[in-house]
Amino acid sequence: MKERYVIVPIGYVRSSVRDKGEAPRQGRDEEFEAVLEILEEYAAAIEGIRGWDVLQVICWMHLASRDILQVHPQGDPTRPLTGVFGTRSPARPNPLAGYTVELVNLEGLKLTVRGIDAVDGTPVVDIKPHISRLDD
Amino acid sequence: MKERYVIVPIGYVRSSVRDKGEAPRQGRDEEFEAVLEILEEYAAAIEGIRGWDVLQVICWMHLASRDILQVHPQGDPTRPLTGVFGTRSPARPNPLAGYTVELVNLEGLKLTVRGIDAVDGTPVVDIKPHISRLDD
Repeated sequence: MKERYVIVPIGYVRSSVRDKGEAPRQGRDEEFEAVLEILEEYAAAIEGIRGWDVLQVICWMHLASRDILQVHPQGDPTRPLTGVFGTRSPARPNPLAGYTVELVNLEGLKLTVRGIDAVDGTPVVDIKPHISRLDD
Repeated sequence: MKERYVIVPIGYVRSSVRDKGEAPRQGRDEEFEAVLEILEEYAAAIEGIRGWDVLQVICWMHLASRDILQVHPQGDPTRPLTGVFGTRSPARPNPLAGYTVELVNLEGLKLTVRGIDAVDGTPVVDIKPHISRLDD
């Protein structure tokens, strides 16, 4: 029996993007703004982000295929099939997406951030401060 | 009933770090080298990383506590309790750790990388190319 782990939402993305086709291909280029609505039970954990300007946010790409191992990069059929670990495709065994975002506002359980193009309703599973020394 | 998602290992970290206490506090400072042993079933997905020098690796911190919402940053009791989303502590609701690593070698299913201080046996759950425009 293969090992498996259980991951839980800590909140959800609220954005104007309604479906996958509509999303700009990479949110950061577009300076796309979204709100992360954090669940009440994580209120004590979210307080810690005050004072940080740039965050790492990990989302669970709930609409992505998980059984595809190779894709045409950026959906371009003229590019050769490439193993998903060499691409940023949402299709991957564990559909985790990491975003480097700017924290615009924090009010109660709502974080307004710049740099996430995820579809409205996408689960958020982790938030950390971005530390250049470690992440760049 | 709360939503939950299932995450699977795509491989495991092989390193000389045997327990949490022994790990340098942040691998990247130490230029720590480790091997990622990818599971056979993901061979087709791993081929795609050839040609990339810098990768994003996400691990599942299987030894971390998941029910702690506030910690003393860097384990220093003189620093005030801080919500875990404002820290890089492994203790968090979903113990995911993201590493920016240098790909040193790829041979079959073994990736040698520089910049991961995870304990030997830590599950790897995702690998992507690091793209400065998006990640820095």
